[in-house]
Amino acid sequence: MIESVRWNKHHFEILDQTLLPHQEEYRSLKNIDHVIEAIQKLRLRGAPLIGVVAAIAMAEYMLKYRPDEQSTLDEYFYNGIEKLKNSRPTAKNLFYALDEIKNTYEKYHQHPLSNLIQEIQIKAKKIWEQDQSKCAMIAEHGAKILSQYSRILTHCNTGALATSGIGTALGVIVKSFELNPDIQVFVDETRPLNQGGRLTCWELSKCQIPYYLVADSMAGIILKDQVDCVIVGADRIALNGDSANKIGTYSLAIIAQYHQKPFYIAAPWTTFDLEIDSGDQIPIEFRNDQELLGFGPYTINYQNSPGFNPAFDVTPHHLITGIMTEYGVLYPPFSQSIHQLKKRFARD
Amino acid sequence: MIESVRWNKHHFEILDQTLLPHQEEYRSLKNIDHVIEAIQKLRLRGAPLIGVVAAIAMAEYMLKYRPDEQSTLDEYFYNGIEKLKNSRPTAKNLFYALDEIKNTYEKYHQHPLSNLIQEIQIKAKKIWEQDQSKCAMIAEHGAKILSQYSRILTHCNTGALATSGIGTALGVIVKSFELNPDIQVFVDETRPLNQGGRLTCWELSKCQIPYYLVADSMAGIILKDQVDCVIVGADRIALNGDSANKIGTYSLAIIAQYHQKPFYIAAPWTTFDLEIDSGDQIPIEFRNDQELLGFGPYTINYQNSPGFNPAFDVTPHHLITGIMTEYGVLYPPFSQSIHQLKKRFARD
Repeated sequence: MIESVRWNKHHFEILDQTLLPHQEEYRSLKNIDHVIEAIQKLRLRGAPLIGVVAAIAMAEYMLKYRPDEQSTLDEYFYNGIEKLKNSRPTAKNLFYALDEIKNTYEKYHQHPLSNLIQEIQIKAKKIWEQDQSKCAMIAEHGAKILSQYSRILTHCNTGALATSGIGTALGVIVKSFELNPDIQVFVDETRPLNQGGRLTCWELSKCQIPYYLVADSMAGIILKDQVDCVIVGADRIALNGDSANKIGTYSLAIIAQYHQKPFYIAAPWTTFDLEIDSGDQIPIEFRNDQELLGFGPYTINYQNSPGFNPAFDVTPHHLITGIMTEYGVLYPPFSQSIHQLKKRFARD
Repeated sequence: MIESVRWNKHHFEILDQTLLPHQEEYRSLKNIDHVIEAIQKLRLRGAPLIGVVAAIAMAEYMLKYRPDEQSTLDEYFYNGIEKLKNSRPTAKNLFYALDEIKNTYEKYHQHPLSNLIQEIQIKAKKIWEQDQSKCAMIAEHGAKILSQYSRILTHCNTGALATSGIGTALGVIVKSFELNPDIQVFVDETRPLNQGGRLTCWELSKCQIPYYLVADSMAGIILKDQVDCVIVGADRIALNGDSANKIGTYSLAIIAQYHQKPFYIAAPWTTFDLEIDSGDQIPIEFRNDQELLGFGPYTINYQNSPGFNPAFDVTPHHLITGIMTEYGVLYPPFSQSIHQLKKRFARD
């Protein structure tokens, strides 16, 4: 129902998430700089969606290559890859999608240009479609567990707006609601950019799933009395299970453990970084501290305040009950369960 | 420097905190309904300040009694007390101040009306002045401990705006900064009414104490890496040390304990409820869930969202390192240390 990205012969556009929930407006991405601006300003966000859009952006970018340009094809291609890679540092899916495009380029770059471009188009379309089917599979596996709980807390937005499919953690919630109509969701606001309050509330409302909006600081009181289970997404997962996700996730995981409530992560295999052993190696994006002052044009807090504004934090593996993937649910010890999956589906 | 309340023969006015930090505007409180409106709308807030203003409100109210009114003096007086008592349910200081005024009334109500009124005026002035001296003593005792730390996290506003003196937790911070100029404060926004981001940042800026604004959800990452100690105020403390305070305090206490960082409370003795054994007996105010949608006239979150909006939570005593009072710092087991102080300063 919600299309976070639209791509066909005539259009490449995204639903501008900075305008939600007040306006539903699509924004055309006409060139790679448009895409980067949209990623950095969070017009599109969510680790899986960033990966999909980056792949499509490369396909569109290659269509615009003119052999008479000053740069060689190689220079042109790798320049596009580098620009997109540098747009945001934390989410793994971006690098995964660009690596897939790069592999395709390297496989076909001796072929005629039109063939090469066509292969990159096919690859981008495949990344897009696979994202949708992975979401469906995560929801299928995850809902078997999550539907056992009635009162669920989630953080940030991990739904149709964060992916090109049904979503990751929010996809599991939507699927669980089909199995258990008693489900109630608690959505935290997710300051400072309010992805929970703006986007997840809007999505749940569209799906007619009952929910309550809460402030981020209410995690303690609601995990004590109101909530049975927490589920969130991830931006990058290390080999030991340490998981980077939207700022505030780490706090929730600590508070869930204190109350002995299960804490699940839902993410596709493309979110796993098979080259890092632990979360210490995940780079954390710090954003402009102006974001903390209020929201958009509205200044709420004291306007001269210096801020400290990390966009992500890392939840250590020992606080995580399970990781729901398209290949099933992984359990601790994650260093073993992730390693087994790595062997089974080795990408390298 | 900051006067949260002004009271003399000609004026009874408060700094309207709903307009801060953008406008510094005093609001005259012309009758008891004005006072109640101001308390309920949080034009004045902070447990100690509410107590002080309620006492002054009763003194001003008694000045307006006319013997030819339909109600008897008793009816008039107790009606005022009841109205104020029902304005907000959680903070103990309000009930303490009103009990003090009631005791004065009952002691002098056989005296000529002018004497009775004068005694209530004297009592209200004493409650006001004592609040200031208690703040100074809390800061004196607390700073001996807090000044040993350089990086301090605080929540909500507990400064000159929450009291009629230097403040409670923020007073301790201000005093500590005199002893340790290396102090840096992390102030969390304190959603949904942003008392941290609006009021504490403004106060720290006036005091030229270095600080960073953070989102409430950043507690995990900053208690891991950035912060050595947490200090907050309280609205009501039970005999076993369980402490009600602004929503989010409980989450901070859990996260501080997880990182083995000290968690202090600063509050005057009037915040202690000597009639309840544990925090389970503290009534928690739920506020209008519209407060969660954004801030004031600005709607940020999805506008049709139902919310869950407790204004306070209770931190269990075992998560508290110490309670800084005007009589010194109390340590666990609090049921003993509070009981000893109760015996020494029995109010009943």
